[in-house]
Amino acid sequence: MKLSDIAEHLGATLEGDGEVDIVAVAGLKEASEGDISFLANPKYAAQVASTRASAVIVPKDWDRSAKCALLRVDNSDQAFAWVAERFYEPVPAAAPGVHPTAVVSPSAQLGEGVHIGAHCSIAEGVTIGPRTVIHPNCVIGYKSSIGGDCLIYPLVSIREFTEIGQRVIIHNGAVIGSDGFGYAVQKDGSRTKIPQIGKVVIEDDVEIGANTAIDRARFGKTKIGKGTKIDNLVQIAHNVVVGEHSVMCGQAGISGSTIIGSRVILAGQAGLAGHLEVGDGAIVGAQSGVMKDIEPKDFVMGSPAMNHLQTKKMIANMVTLPKLKDRIKQLEEQVEHLKGGAR
Amino acid sequence: MKLSDIAEHLGATLEGDGEVDIVAVAGLKEASEGDISFLANPKYAAQVASTRASAVIVPKDWDRSAKCALLRVDNSDQAFAWVAERFYEPVPAAAPGVHPTAVVSPSAQLGEGVHIGAHCSIAEGVTIGPRTVIHPNCVIGYKSSIGGDCLIYPLVSIREFTEIGQRVIIHNGAVIGSDGFGYAVQKDGSRTKIPQIGKVVIEDDVEIGANTAIDRARFGKTKIGKGTKIDNLVQIAHNVVVGEHSVMCGQAGISGSTIIGSRVILAGQAGLAGHLEVGDGAIVGAQSGVMKDIEPKDFVMGSPAMNHLQTKKMIANMVTLPKLKDRIKQLEEQVEHLKGGAR
Amino acid sequence: MKLSDIAEHLGATLEGDGEVDIVAVAGLKEASEGDISFLANPKYAAQVASTRASAVIVPKDWDRSAKCALLRVDNSDQAFAWVAERFYEPVPAAAPGVHPTAVVSPSAQLGEGVHIGAHCSIAEGVTIGPRTVIHPNCVIGYKSSIGGDCLIYPLVSIREFTEIGQRVIIHNGAVIGSDGFGYAVQKDGSRTKIPQIGKVVIEDDVEIGANTAIDRARFGKTKIGKGTKIDNLVQIAHNVVVGEHSVMCGQAGISGSTIIGSRVILAGQAGLAGHLEVGDGAIVGAQSGVMKDIEPKDFVMGSPAMNHLQTKKMIANMVTLPKLKDRIKQLEEQVEHLKGGAR
Repeated sequence: MKLSDIAEHLGATLEGDGEVDIVAVAGLKEASEGDISFLANPKYAAQVASTRASAVIVPKDWDRSAKCALLRVDNSDQAFAWVAERFYEPVPAAAPGVHPTAVVSPSAQLGEGVHIGAHCSIAEGVTIGPRTVIHPNCVIGYKSSIGGDCLIYPLVSIREFTEIGQRVIIHNGAVIGSDGFGYAVQKDGSRTKIPQIGKVVIEDDVEIGANTAIDRARFGKTKIGKGTKIDNLVQIAHNVVVGEHSVMCGQAGISGSTIIGSRVILAGQAGLAGHLEVGDGAIVGAQSGVMKDIEPKDFVMGSPAMNHLQTKKMIANMVTLPKLKDRIKQLEEQVEHLKGGAR
Repeated sequence: MKLSDIAEHLGATLEGDGEVDIVAVAGLKEASEGDISFLANPKYAAQVASTRASAVIVPKDWDRSAKCALLRVDNSDQAFAWVAERFYEPVPAAAPGVHPTAVVSPSAQLGEGVHIGAHCSIAEGVTIGPRTVIHPNCVIGYKSSIGGDCLIYPLVSIREFTEIGQRVIIHNGAVIGSDGFGYAVQKDGSRTKIPQIGKVVIEDDVEIGANTAIDRARFGKTKIGKGTKIDNLVQIAHNVVVGEHSVMCGQAGISGSTIIGSRVILAGQAGLAGHLEVGDGAIVGAQSGVMKDIEPKDFVMGSPAMNHLQTKKMIANMVTLPKLKDRIKQLEEQVEHLKGGAR
Repeated sequence: MKLSDIAEHLGATLEGDGEVDIVAVAGLKEASEGDISFLANPKYAAQVASTRASAVIVPKDWDRSAKCALLRVDNSDQAFAWVAERFYEPVPAAAPGVHPTAVVSPSAQLGEGVHIGAHCSIAEGVTIGPRTVIHPNCVIGYKSSIGGDCLIYPLVSIREFTEIGQRVIIHNGAVIGSDGFGYAVQKDGSRTKIPQIGKVVIEDDVEIGANTAIDRARFGKTKIGKGTKIDNLVQIAHNVVVGEHSVMCGQAGISGSTIIGSRVILAGQAGLAGHLEVGDGAIVGAQSGVMKDIEPKDFVMGSPAMNHLQTKKMIANMVTLPKLKDRIKQLEEQVEHLKGGAR
């Protein structure tokens, strides 16, 4: 693809040789001749000078020098995304139909255009909406329902009675509907299992990451609201309720019965105790340990988590503790001296 | 189900219309007409007034008003559990037998009433006890043994030589017997693999959560004692030994060769270093980082973990650090002033 | 195996009855008659006196008493490893060939001696190098390539276009190439998916633990360098680049676009923010939360992570905070007293 053609498509200002043939996309550091790269994060500005890419897409007001051609645009990230898709070889679409090795109960109802991959196991009473793709080696449990236009990647587990909306994406190895973790302690210290007879409800447009686990409710439902996005290896315990358009980053964990609002962000490895409420628009910093309710729009961090400004101040003070100690020692000497003089 | 019938079964005191037809169970917040709900955790007391449920099960001494019918009982949690099970539609029992798509070695020994689901792969020399259910798409490795009345959910991996007791439950995606993480560092900085030729032993009545990983021993065994319950996404490294009736919550991690006693509780995301001993009845708080042995019955928290009272005191002090700083500044000014006067 | 024969093979100094028949290996604590055990970690020295093993391998200069036979050697850990392997019953090698239940695209290219286990699903255009073993129930995506002499354990997911080198080991349940976690926030707070059209490249001699997830790049590649070893339940986000011979322990997590050098060690549950650089030879302590770049060979710990000496000093000071508070209170009283006297 000629660089000048790319520039034209993007409405970019081209500086340099438009005749160059662009053959691939790459990061600034990894790029080599024939590649096009981009600068969106100012942190990487210095890499533009040293990249071996043939061209770099930069923001309009970029004012440093470069050895390669430049394409100036309003939004370099979006512009690059468009270019990257041009060089992407798509995976062939999954053809409608049931693979002959899949085991699908005769009582399962499959919508128009559904694809069921090899070695899937689809239990009694399952319903799957139109155009949904179930990739190979998935297991869908009794009377679960999956909406239309969903994408269920290989080796996903969906347990009985789970309800999944439209356009939901579930990545490999995720487990939806495993038993909640609940036991009654006996007098001898042993534990007997409390039946977990609720279910999981996943609303429309949710995405669930690889090897994430979402437990079914003790009774009632564990619920993930519309448009919420969940990263890999996240743990969501029984009876958790998550609102709409919230985000849970990698390895975050939510204990039982906690209620998360809408447009909430949990950063990576954040952990929340059980029976809490997290208000709409709240942000929980990475590795935070949340032990109490969070007000709407509050931004907490630390373990135990507090408002992020308070935590940052506390950390700043902790770092200066050795100095505080010195100041106290000095004061003690001075007071000792004063006491001598005052005698 | 008529509310008066439920009241009679529970031996509950009924306040309100016993003729109401109850059709489902739900949490206080989610309930609608025809639902029965319950109050066990005082935290949710305010929700009884606003619930749309037709009836709520409450403790005997509950003294606040409600718009719906009330059932007063000794133990509202247990009473509700009984009601919830009445409305639960059970999953049909797995019929004894081997699904025709399962691949079972002729040398495997299956007890009476065993169920092997679709697409399972059962290796040479495996033995499975009576009435155990292996759900679809599980893989059981060479010469592993599984006791009777176990429940192995879909997509579980059990590696070679694993020994599993009676009535063990393993949830979807769990991996039992993966190699321990051990390498010998070479002079050039590369690592060569140390063979992990031990095994995993899981005793009776253990439950293991979704996507949890338990590594085989370097030699000897990694062992999970009788009645211990393990939540989702927990990491248990090689040669860890866990006692009886212990509990490990979601995303906890135990490093190699650490010995955990009986009736120990590890809260969520707790992490333990290797080669430690944790005494019987100890409790490790959420997100704690344990770097040294823990005495029996000690309750530790924090990272690094200390006795929870010490940690709480430390955190309380940390929060007041800005005030301490102010007090030091004031002292400095006063001492400076005194020094002037004493001159 | 006679103990004297073992001693001879090891070149060990034998103290005690060489005629004893050794039938198994075990840890000091678990051992019983007929077992041989070993002492490598001085921490367990006291267990040599109480072990029920028939013999213990000890370092040459071991100077405490024992009731059982002793074998004195230069390196007791290595010596024991040799003995342990003698008692290990190997798993029968996977025979070359494709299991009849595996579904392998006719366009897939399998090298000489490749083994494909039961219920595997191998997509179009996949290439697998000679002698590689794909265990049962794995799913390999479109146009992925796997080198020779690899070991892919059961239930592993490899998504499309993934490139895997020679002698790579991937443990059960790992997911390679799931979509990166990237969304564009819309004005109404909802998120639209940013296509993740890059891939994952795993170089030679890498080992990846059970249920670990490695996301494909947004564009370009997520890359794991030669000889790097990754433990269980580790999260590696899109566009992360890891150098050679690095080590990532259980439940560590790396956010998007972070670059990790060579011979870096991330201890368990460590978490790294995105877009960072971690220099060669750096060490990140357990549960550390890394928020900024790390210099080569630096050793950081804490959350937020700082140089480990600074963190240790800070923690030591935090623990003495109550004492500091007392000292300030005393100073205040003394100053108050002095002010009275100076009036």
